[in-house]
Amino acid sequence: DIVAAAEAVLRDEALEAGRLPLAGRHVLITSGPTHEPIDPVRYIANRSSGKQGHALAAAAYAAGARVTLVSGPVDLPDPANVEVIRVQSAAEMLTAVETHLPADIAIMAAAVADWRVASEGAQKIKKDGSGKPPALQLTENPDILATVGHHDSLRPELLIGFAAETQNLIDNARSKLERKNADWIIANDVSPQTGIMGGDANTVRLVSRSGVEDWPEMSKADVARRIIARAAEALKG
Amino acid sequence: DIVAAAEAVLRDEALEAGRLPLAGRHVLITSGPTHEPIDPVRYIANRSSGKQGHALAAAAYAAGARVTLVSGPVDLPDPANVEVIRVQSAAEMLTAVETHLPADIAIMAAAVADWRVASEGAQKIKKDGSGKPPALQLTENPDILATVGHHDSLRPELLIGFAAETQNLIDNARSKLERKNADWIIANDVSPQTGIMGGDANTVRLVSRSGVEDWPEMSKADVARRIIARAAEALKG
Repeated sequence: DIVAAAEAVLRDEALEAGRLPLAGRHVLITSGPTHEPIDPVRYIANRSSGKQGHALAAAAYAAGARVTLVSGPVDLPDPANVEVIRVQSAAEMLTAVETHLPADIAIMAAAVADWRVASEGAQKIKKDGSGKPPALQLTENPDILATVGHHDSLRPELLIGFAAETQNLIDNARSKLERKNADWIIANDVSPQTGIMGGDANTVRLVSRSGVEDWPEMSKADVARRIIARAAEALKG
Repeated sequence: DIVAAAEAVLRDEALEAGRLPLAGRHVLITSGPTHEPIDPVRYIANRSSGKQGHALAAAAYAAGARVTLVSGPVDLPDPANVEVIRVQSAAEMLTAVETHLPADIAIMAAAVADWRVASEGAQKIKKDGSGKPPALQLTENPDILATVGHHDSLRPELLIGFAAETQNLIDNARSKLERKNADWIIANDVSPQTGIMGGDANTVRLVSRSGVEDWPEMSKADVARRIIARAAEALKG
């Protein structure tokens, strides 16, 4: 549409004039939930909508970057001018992320399942008539943030993770920062009463080795622009 | 839009002229998947899109019926002129179905989860540091089709269930017909290679006490119209 066309012209001008802070940079972003198959028809999912991750991709492009977005199953349009790789499971997301390194900045905003089902059924699991339901044995998924954070040769200059918690937000975020060798953790409280998961607004805290910043509630688009602006400053510094 | 307006006028005329086979009838339809919560952010889901159930609701309305559609979480618009009740879990779906009886015809097209998690976590389940993933203990969900089929006083005159299977299609459908006291089972093979789950076409078999009819592949809208036409005949007969 006409707005998008006008934005593209303005961006090109800004890029040529050297006014875009992420010009020449590659930003790799993950977004959305993962779906972990149980059998051919069932899966484990989570309530992530992908809105925050997709907004980050749009903001990174607007700031001049080349952007790769690795997205789980979401009901969102692809952000314009961004390379989008669609995946289902955590294992597929890890492969896509590793394939698209190196990056100057990586922002792991997807809500990746911690666990998958240990042995995916080749056929639909049926009630066996015993009246005893099955137990789903789970196994740990690869940790994408930690894998990127501890990468031998391709760790991004700035690595940002997300922590969506319902309790002990800051403790969990600090521990995640260390264990996964991230630079920042964007922490948010996703208790159902906050309306953050699936909603358009977000209230986050930026946790780094130098402390915790509380940001006010704002739209996910504004959170995205602020993270990208801060990331661009950090690369310069 | 103008097509819908024209259809409404034609339907009103047909209704007044007594040409609509389900005039004065109440049809209750379920559609879509159910989501069974694991904790505040995770859930078990299935790949049902709700396309077949929603098409049935539209076809039943077009045939003159008053239609109630109880739908799990789907990304579909509500069918026009249909009362839509949105639910998440199998337990909520059962409550909504029981609340909206009596019905002349009930078509249980939803892919209801057989199991839910035995004890839903009040907080997001965390890795406990042991490296040992949790096992999800499941418990059986209420059986909506069987509950309606064995209802003391409000069993619909015609009760239709669906069986989505990846193997032993007809055996499973016949067994379901008996155990749940349904009149017909619409059976379809949802093995991933068929593309039926989430797709726009369907290949079904109508299993009743008098035998099995194989229907050719057709659109879900055509399957819906044919089921509704057959249901209207059965009520007359």
